[in-house]
Amino acid sequence: MEKSLNIIKSGNINFPLEDYISAEKFKKIKEFSKTHETPFLIIDLERINENYEELSTNLPFAKIYYAVKSNSSIEVLSLLRNLGSSFDVASIYELDLVLSLGVSPSKISYGNTIKKATHVKHAYEKGINLFATDSIEDLINISKNAPGAKVFFRILTDNSSADWPLSKKFGTHLDLAYDLAVKAKELGLIPYGMSFHVGSQQKDVGQWEDAIAKCSSIFKLLKENGIELKMINLGGGFPSRYNYVINKSSEYCTEIAKYLHDYFGKDLPEVIIEPGRSMVGNSGVIVSEIVLISKKNKIDKLNWVYLDIGKFGGLIETLDESIKYPIFIEKKGTPREVILAGPTCDSMDILYENYKYKLPSTIKIKDKVYIFTTGAYTQSYSSICFNGFPPLKSYIL
Amino acid sequence: MEKSLNIIKSGNINFPLEDYISAEKFKKIKEFSKTHETPFLIIDLERINENYEELSTNLPFAKIYYAVKSNSSIEVLSLLRNLGSSFDVASIYELDLVLSLGVSPSKISYGNTIKKATHVKHAYEKGINLFATDSIEDLINISKNAPGAKVFFRILTDNSSADWPLSKKFGTHLDLAYDLAVKAKELGLIPYGMSFHVGSQQKDVGQWEDAIAKCSSIFKLLKENGIELKMINLGGGFPSRYNYVINKSSEYCTEIAKYLHDYFGKDLPEVIIEPGRSMVGNSGVIVSEIVLISKKNKIDKLNWVYLDIGKFGGLIETLDESIKYPIFIEKKGTPREVILAGPTCDSMDILYENYKYKLPSTIKIKDKVYIFTTGAYTQSYSSICFNGFPPLKSYIL
Repeated sequence: MEKSLNIIKSGNINFPLEDYISAEKFKKIKEFSKTHETPFLIIDLERINENYEELSTNLPFAKIYYAVKSNSSIEVLSLLRNLGSSFDVASIYELDLVLSLGVSPSKISYGNTIKKATHVKHAYEKGINLFATDSIEDLINISKNAPGAKVFFRILTDNSSADWPLSKKFGTHLDLAYDLAVKAKELGLIPYGMSFHVGSQQKDVGQWEDAIAKCSSIFKLLKENGIELKMINLGGGFPSRYNYVINKSSEYCTEIAKYLHDYFGKDLPEVIIEPGRSMVGNSGVIVSEIVLISKKNKIDKLNWVYLDIGKFGGLIETLDESIKYPIFIEKKGTPREVILAGPTCDSMDILYENYKYKLPSTIKIKDKVYIFTTGAYTQSYSSICFNGFPPLKSYIL
Repeated sequence: MEKSLNIIKSGNINFPLEDYISAEKFKKIKEFSKTHETPFLIIDLERINENYEELSTNLPFAKIYYAVKSNSSIEVLSLLRNLGSSFDVASIYELDLVLSLGVSPSKISYGNTIKKATHVKHAYEKGINLFATDSIEDLINISKNAPGAKVFFRILTDNSSADWPLSKKFGTHLDLAYDLAVKAKELGLIPYGMSFHVGSQQKDVGQWEDAIAKCSSIFKLLKENGIELKMINLGGGFPSRYNYVINKSSEYCTEIAKYLHDYFGKDLPEVIIEPGRSMVGNSGVIVSEIVLISKKNKIDKLNWVYLDIGKFGGLIETLDESIKYPIFIEKKGTPREVILAGPTCDSMDILYENYKYKLPSTIKIKDKVYIFTTGAYTQSYSSICFNGFPPLKSYIL
């Protein structure tokens, strides 16, 4: 294999393949691909194991609540259960799934601030005692259907430096967060902690400092008024390696530990962290195939390259070209700019048009295409049958 | 019921409820909703029957190829089969589904220009003999795997006035379309016709004139060079009634018939039309429920209203707020602007934020929300399990 084969050319940035996958594992995936029709996702459980151990080592004082929504396959959940993880669920459907794997309800938080009354009741009856909230209305809902439960209050943060920002829809301003805690106590609930989410794939670690500072101010204010919070939930947001270099998890953790020390001193509360993307993102490789390479007119320099996976088959995070996956084709040749699109009869199903990926000039129809860092937020998003295409298949390496 | 109950306040436009559904059918849907957990989609087959008859009457010379991708439920496909419709499929999965209902392969076209070789072969072996194409590479693929088949050439059109434009990804410029026809003949295929798609939910009927004019010029040019095309495929694009008034189908048809006459005179070729949205859009009502109404701070005038359906549960066409569904709540009260969002832990799952919907000031959590004109491009798009939520259920009225 020549050197040029080992470079991933995503856009203008070149990385060695080994940054994403070992030669041995890549070989296994290529073997597997010979006998299975694309597209499919392969998950490497070893990677998840490593990620879990790394995070546990780097933030030894934090409890890990894995964000089930990022990848809810039985194998992934079972592995994390065996490693001792707790779980954050976004719905009663995820809750029932996690419980069915023998996880204790005491290790599960209901992290969605948008909940039907019947769903809160269901969760409470199953033994769930920890709920996120960010509004008076939801708090009343929890107090009625999960009396006496622990609640934590999600605050708004600035997500502007995240690739997949979450700011606007969730969280509340500080004054309302304060009121929520007071109201929770009145309603017979336990005002338990504060949470925030700096946005998914957040590259600016300073965002955690801002959020931790905000939380600490509420902790103090409430304490002065007789309410002692016990927990801070740092949310998710740690980045995965896509097509740019990111800080190591250990660097993030060192900084965050410092912020916690700076703002809470010796009174460090219970710390929760909710990794999703950073726990499973780099465990996944999607294997796809080039279905068509074409031009719109005879002298076009720019090829359209159509893959057998697109926005509606699992790559919805390419919306607005937000997440730029590392894409690799085992071919030599000068890198040429292309437009990448999916297989459906829908023009929204274009992956990258403004941001130009470069692929080797020698690519051909039927070439295999490896899309790295696709373990999170892919399979679960895929449409049930748009254009008739089945949802993305998922295998374990 | 007071008059205010009968008005749909979508944004700044008010329409009587009867524009979307009869009182009798609405009553039935409300009854059904009492015993079924939301969200779900209800399809009214009578409406589809009427739409089919109307289109057949207004364009008696055109063959209807229903665009299966818009709604592929068995009941819808069976009804259209019984009415004598032909079918346009986007994949072999849709093809197999339609064939399983006893439809003759002679009534099916393979309309996707992006096709794997194995899929062309599969379709050909099943008896499909009519394929769309827009590139030399795909043409070669068809010639190898469906030797002797009829092919039609999709040209690029300007979709700018469509709510859901399709322009960039599909179609080719005229000079290449000409070449494709010549090449098809060389490859032993039958250069059969021309097609275009003016974009889905196209409100400017003039777009059909432009496209028909382009096609007629290619017909003439090819005829002078010994290739006689037999068919023109007008694609889809007829609008459905969302939150603005549209022309009647009959008005569109009269204009289009005139254009065909103007450009083809007495030599009218076989005419194909591929309705999807206009065939099934107005047959669907999604019944949802308000899960939460909240504010981001104490003095906010603007409420966030969270529904139990969002972008990933079937309303993906709210991307960029493209399709603005008529939304109805059976409550009185002053219309107030709201932000509408879905139930998942994803900030992309906001339905309408820039375009402000108005809902009655008296709305409450658990109120039923009726979303009209949701028969097309909803259920099939819904994610398989994002955040654990199951795909949208669909029932027949």
